[in-house]
Amino acid sequence: MRSAPTAVHHHPLRVYWEDTDAGGIVFYANYLKYFERARTEWLRSLGFSQEALRVAADPQEAVMFVVTDTSVRYRAPARLDDLLEISVEIVRCGAASMDIRQTATRNGIVLAEGDIRIGCVDPENLKPRRIPAAISTAVASSHGLHP
Amino acid sequence: MRSAPTAVHHHPLRVYWEDTDAGGIVFYANYLKYFERARTEWLRSLGFSQEALRVAADPQEAVMFVVTDTSVRYRAPARLDDLLEISVEIVRCGAASMDIRQTATRNGIVLAEGDIRIGCVDPENLKPRRIPAAISTAVASSHGLHP
Amino acid sequence: MRSAPTAVHHHPLRVYWEDTDAGGIVFYANYLKYFERARTEWLRSLGFSQEALRVAADPQEAVMFVVTDTSVRYRAPARLDDLLEISVEIVRCGAASMDIRQTATRNGIVLAEGDIRIGCVDPENLKPRRIPAAISTAVASSHGLHP
Amino acid sequence: MRSAPTAVHHHPLRVYWEDTDAGGIVFYANYLKYFERARTEWLRSLGFSQEALRVAADPQEAVMFVVTDTSVRYRAPARLDDLLEISVEIVRCGAASMDIRQTATRNGIVLAEGDIRIGCVDPENLKPRRIPAAISTAVASSHGLHP
Repeated sequence: MRSAPTAVHHHPLRVYWEDTDAGGIVFYANYLKYFERARTEWLRSLGFSQEALRVAADPQEAVMFVVTDTSVRYRAPARLDDLLEISVEIVRCGAASMDIRQTATRNGIVLAEGDIRIGCVDPENLKPRRIPAAISTAVASSHGLHP
Repeated sequence: MRSAPTAVHHHPLRVYWEDTDAGGIVFYANYLKYFERARTEWLRSLGFSQEALRVAADPQEAVMFVVTDTSVRYRAPARLDDLLEISVEIVRCGAASMDIRQTATRNGIVLAEGDIRIGCVDPENLKPRRIPAAISTAVASSHGLHP
Repeated sequence: MRSAPTAVHHHPLRVYWEDTDAGGIVFYANYLKYFERARTEWLRSLGFSQEALRVAADPQEAVMFVVTDTSVRYRAPARLDDLLEISVEIVRCGAASMDIRQTATRNGIVLAEGDIRIGCVDPENLKPRRIPAAISTAVASSHGLHP
Repeated sequence: MRSAPTAVHHHPLRVYWEDTDAGGIVFYANYLKYFERARTEWLRSLGFSQEALRVAADPQEAVMFVVTDTSVRYRAPARLDDLLEISVEIVRCGAASMDIRQTATRNGIVLAEGDIRIGCVDPENLKPRRIPAAISTAVASSHGLHP
């Protein structure tokens, strides 16, 4: 259970032409990209770069996060030039996977919300690998989770 | 309930560079694109073009399908040059929305499976609009659904 | 001719998973997206929102900018997590089109450079339309161009 | 110099929602994807899979094609559901690079045309590598080029 509002990370982003479709709104698949950007910046805010994790000096310690489940509800459309805010809230941090609740909002109105599960794997063979202790500790600490 | 194997539409597609990411596999968000291509070709196989539906001669009859919910499980990776098959199975066709079960397979192995809900809306204001009878009849007929 | 270094607009951006391909580097087509984001932010810095221009209160004044020519040289690869800077330099502002020189750099090293021509059109029929005086004046003023 | 009309490879493709933008037309950057799909199918028609080339049994022989220059003119818009044809014509096949002329047409009308230069590199370090003889011979033969 998260202990405080600060446990939720927020990432602002702008809607560009590339994000829209002929319906005049953001193409729904792109919210998965938005959610990912926010997770990447959240990890970076904890001190971790995914590229550095992936090409670690010791291949035994290299890890890559892959998305294994996504569930997204689209509630209202976003349009060109909209300024959105993407949230990241860790709801579970296990040994080799995490569950993350995310939302895309505009002026506080929820446009899309998603539940994303990511798994930690060996970049070479994509087999599950334990989340590095440094990461799970930082995650638990920042979210008030009890690992 | 579907009445026969023919109730499931299949769409083949190839994995190109644009679909992959630095992990060497298909970027997970792209399965939503694959699923959409298959739904579009399924609708076309029933005689309906989405562009024609959207810019209908009579604006009162114009409709656009929007995705309102997506739930996808990623089971195994696809790679550059893979030949995939995307399935479309209608599990519910309501007054203004449909539930669709889809899979991405390679040589019969399921790589990803999704549950997609699409809603029928007025292209002008994105408000719900009844699915045109011609479409719901064709869908029910092809899937052995009882509307 | 530009009068001063300030005539070049700069836009920072981060490379995410969505931008990369199986070669481990940024997919070349994505530099066109990067260039576009920077042009959009440059226009915004001059006080113009493309969505507002496109859906102007008076349809007679609505304009949309479309890309008519792109020429890009790819010099060095960008990778996941790289922090890039995208430049925008107007080299010509005509009655209904502009020529823009853009680069993507990382720590001052040019990774890609492009020459982009954009045309001003009526959003309804895509026919050429004069660039609004407010825009061409702002552009000329910010770039020291003599219109 | 190409010897006959058969020297040009053609690849059909359909425009989907994912390809369009809020202007109601195909987002210009996507023509680079279309051109790439056609080049990939052209290489496949000659018997070569890019994934197989990239992960060759002998790393000394592994090659990857990267795009080094693109120049595209956009002449007319494509829209949702359009059926396009993408052409591939090799205009030069050198030791480590090729120049390719491509067009996107709809019912014979040219919508976009591009000049693409691709380079052959070592997948490990992205340094130039000689185009495998099997490929350059097949290319020259299919296009009536004198290597």
